[in-house]
Amino acid sequence: MDPVDELRALVPRVVTDPDAVQAYRFDEAYLAPAGQPCAVVLAERTADVVATLRWATAHRVPVVPRGAGTGLSGGAAAVDGGVVLSLARMTAIRELDADNLLAVVEPGVLNADVSRAAEEYGLFYPPDPSSFEISTIGGNVATNAGGLRCVKYGVTRDSVLGLEVVLADGRTVRTGGRTVKHVAGYDLTRLFVGSEGTLGVVTEATLRLRPRPATPPVTFVATFPTLAGAGAAVAGILRTGGAPSLLELLDNTSINLIEDHHRMDLDRTAAALVVGQSDAPTAPADVARMTDACTRHGAVDVVTTDDRAETEMLLAARRAHHGAVTAAGATLIDDVGVPPARLPDLLTGIEAVAAEYGVVIATVGHAGDGNVHPTVIFPPNDPAARDRAVRAAEAVCHLAVRLGGTITGEHGVGSVKRDWLAAELDPDTRAVHHAIKAALDPLGILNPGKAI
Amino acid sequence: MDPVDELRALVPRVVTDPDAVQAYRFDEAYLAPAGQPCAVVLAERTADVVATLRWATAHRVPVVPRGAGTGLSGGAAAVDGGVVLSLARMTAIRELDADNLLAVVEPGVLNADVSRAAEEYGLFYPPDPSSFEISTIGGNVATNAGGLRCVKYGVTRDSVLGLEVVLADGRTVRTGGRTVKHVAGYDLTRLFVGSEGTLGVVTEATLRLRPRPATPPVTFVATFPTLAGAGAAVAGILRTGGAPSLLELLDNTSINLIEDHHRMDLDRTAAALVVGQSDAPTAPADVARMTDACTRHGAVDVVTTDDRAETEMLLAARRAHHGAVTAAGATLIDDVGVPPARLPDLLTGIEAVAAEYGVVIATVGHAGDGNVHPTVIFPPNDPAARDRAVRAAEAVCHLAVRLGGTITGEHGVGSVKRDWLAAELDPDTRAVHHAIKAALDPLGILNPGKAI
Repeated sequence: MDPVDELRALVPRVVTDPDAVQAYRFDEAYLAPAGQPCAVVLAERTADVVATLRWATAHRVPVVPRGAGTGLSGGAAAVDGGVVLSLARMTAIRELDADNLLAVVEPGVLNADVSRAAEEYGLFYPPDPSSFEISTIGGNVATNAGGLRCVKYGVTRDSVLGLEVVLADGRTVRTGGRTVKHVAGYDLTRLFVGSEGTLGVVTEATLRLRPRPATPPVTFVATFPTLAGAGAAVAGILRTGGAPSLLELLDNTSINLIEDHHRMDLDRTAAALVVGQSDAPTAPADVARMTDACTRHGAVDVVTTDDRAETEMLLAARRAHHGAVTAAGATLIDDVGVPPARLPDLLTGIEAVAAEYGVVIATVGHAGDGNVHPTVIFPPNDPAARDRAVRAAEAVCHLAVRLGGTITGEHGVGSVKRDWLAAELDPDTRAVHHAIKAALDPLGILNPGKAI
Repeated sequence: MDPVDELRALVPRVVTDPDAVQAYRFDEAYLAPAGQPCAVVLAERTADVVATLRWATAHRVPVVPRGAGTGLSGGAAAVDGGVVLSLARMTAIRELDADNLLAVVEPGVLNADVSRAAEEYGLFYPPDPSSFEISTIGGNVATNAGGLRCVKYGVTRDSVLGLEVVLADGRTVRTGGRTVKHVAGYDLTRLFVGSEGTLGVVTEATLRLRPRPATPPVTFVATFPTLAGAGAAVAGILRTGGAPSLLELLDNTSINLIEDHHRMDLDRTAAALVVGQSDAPTAPADVARMTDACTRHGAVDVVTTDDRAETEMLLAARRAHHGAVTAAGATLIDDVGVPPARLPDLLTGIEAVAAEYGVVIATVGHAGDGNVHPTVIFPPNDPAARDRAVRAAEAVCHLAVRLGGTITGEHGVGSVKRDWLAAELDPDTRAVHHAIKAALDPLGILNPGKAI
């Protein structure tokens, strides 16, 4: 029997129509090459995942697990002749145990739906990638997704208590549990978190919830004439321990693109905007300390509010970034991290890279974590410009590593950054990655060509 | 040449004198059997570790890495014919980068010495196992040590940014880095944290520091007539989001042993004491909310203070626990975790186990994390009593697993709990552990018989 016909007999929903398959070939990293899969499996339960992986092992067929396809590193790019295994239909919240501050969910549930369900109990799920309305928990787990609130509450890794994972050969394992502290055996949970579907397929996650802040947040925006001042203010805020629940930065290029796209009367001459927030009961005093740090480091304009509508206005520039940069041309959204006090060096260095490669780079990001997204903008349909953009992004990654940082803080390596990983990991450390991969997926069928 | 003579030529400090070796055979789990090692290496630098492991690989000699030997699960128990590799002399704080809130330290530095060094910069290192004055960072990393402050700041895993690790064959790898967010490759840092020296030997750790709270903490002690009330109060405190920086519990047996040992006028009839603290700027209001929850759930006596001397008095009972129980007989200090709302069931169940096995169990622990230490007390030099104690401890572990919990929250599996791991991990999940172990240590020379 043809292997795909055999697969069709094993799982209820298999898509092979070329037009339908096309929608499952790429994620949001559209520059990443994608192969032509032989089929797409739309899993509806763990048994479908088990059946697919047993079949794939028997036939040596590569499997690319996939959530909503919002990834930015090509981690979900399809592989020639492989199967795309979509978890997007596994959307149940199996349990919400408010007394124990946890939820047990299927991988296809949207991040925002977990938070909405938790809200009824006065709880929330902290990790909030910008894609939170459209990305799945499974994808968040696969990439160890970050977000704006992570400066206070940590990344996805810090909110996953346990996992159910189907291995390449179809065996199902359970990691972690329902307790915050847990040292029985190796920390397999955090080995699978961020492994981009190369070690196993997550079919259930036990998530840690937190009590929702009882008081409204206080938000500020500070305008800086120099990058050094903005960087020093961020470092100063982190040193004082005011525990910002959001600490973002936009550079001059971003400010101007946002003004071009949607006028907000931002200062086009500013080197940077810093946007911060506290959600603590002490928010007014916390934010006063944060804005003092801004003023001390040369901020020329500081606006603060605890009004809900005004808060949305202050956050509007940050939120407008994605629309503004994508309106300006084709984009390559990078994702690098440095120790926070090296932010000014990183931002200055990015300006130099933009000049050297003749590209526009608009940088925005999570300043409080030292994690920013330099977005390279270039004319569409111009292969030479596209090559310059890729080389500029690579140069930014090398810059981050030179500054003691990383080529990816929250988007993952995917297929896009795999060739650049050697800048950060020495050969022996990479060999450990490959040894672990070989131990868990000896045939190499799980998301080949990604992550490591 | 005799292999030990060869070793002597490779590293400067090798101990073989039987009396001197004796001090390196056990950790604090003195019930755990320990073998007779052929030598103890006192490493002074990474090169000594590399040389020892290359030699051990060449000669197929087991290696037991060791810090200060304060472990409670037999993780550092020596192996017959093996080498004990002590990291206790590698005590340098190589770097303290206050601007980037991190320290780079050698594994033998004491936990308390990191905090003291950080204090000069207005920073601190959060994980605070009760052994913090005498345990090493390397040991803390090996066991993923917890502590009192972990209810707010997380365990060791949450404060380690990166590691230098020497593998079984002598290769040196670097994991993680100097950034809070980092997803370039698998999360090897957290795979090594808690692996109890079975996957590699940590020779350097990059630790995350935090700003010290600027205001004095507020502390309370609440006395409960019922376990159910104490458990409900703890769950209520966690639900309100008051962010306790300490939330401990002592049971009736503990209260009475402490009173026997050192009179403090505790209520000998109380079912439990709950001790809590907030170190936030909002501490007075936070603690008022916490004590409200206690009163609401039946606390008969609640004392609160922000005075430094009175705080020490309120914490004295908690601190006196270890001395009181060890004065009462031989002890077996257990370490189980449950989802926090299951604490009353756990405590009631522990009382039933004590009655069934005819032993005394005094329970104390980190109620806010659902992680407690039921300490089995039995007459010394009585093999039958000792056997009953071990069987009671095992029964408590099974109870915790039945309640959705774990056999170890922060002490590790070591050699003591290895046979009990099957109660928590199914065979396929355990097989993944062994596959990873085999991938990193194919000869099985690193701390054999421990952890997994």
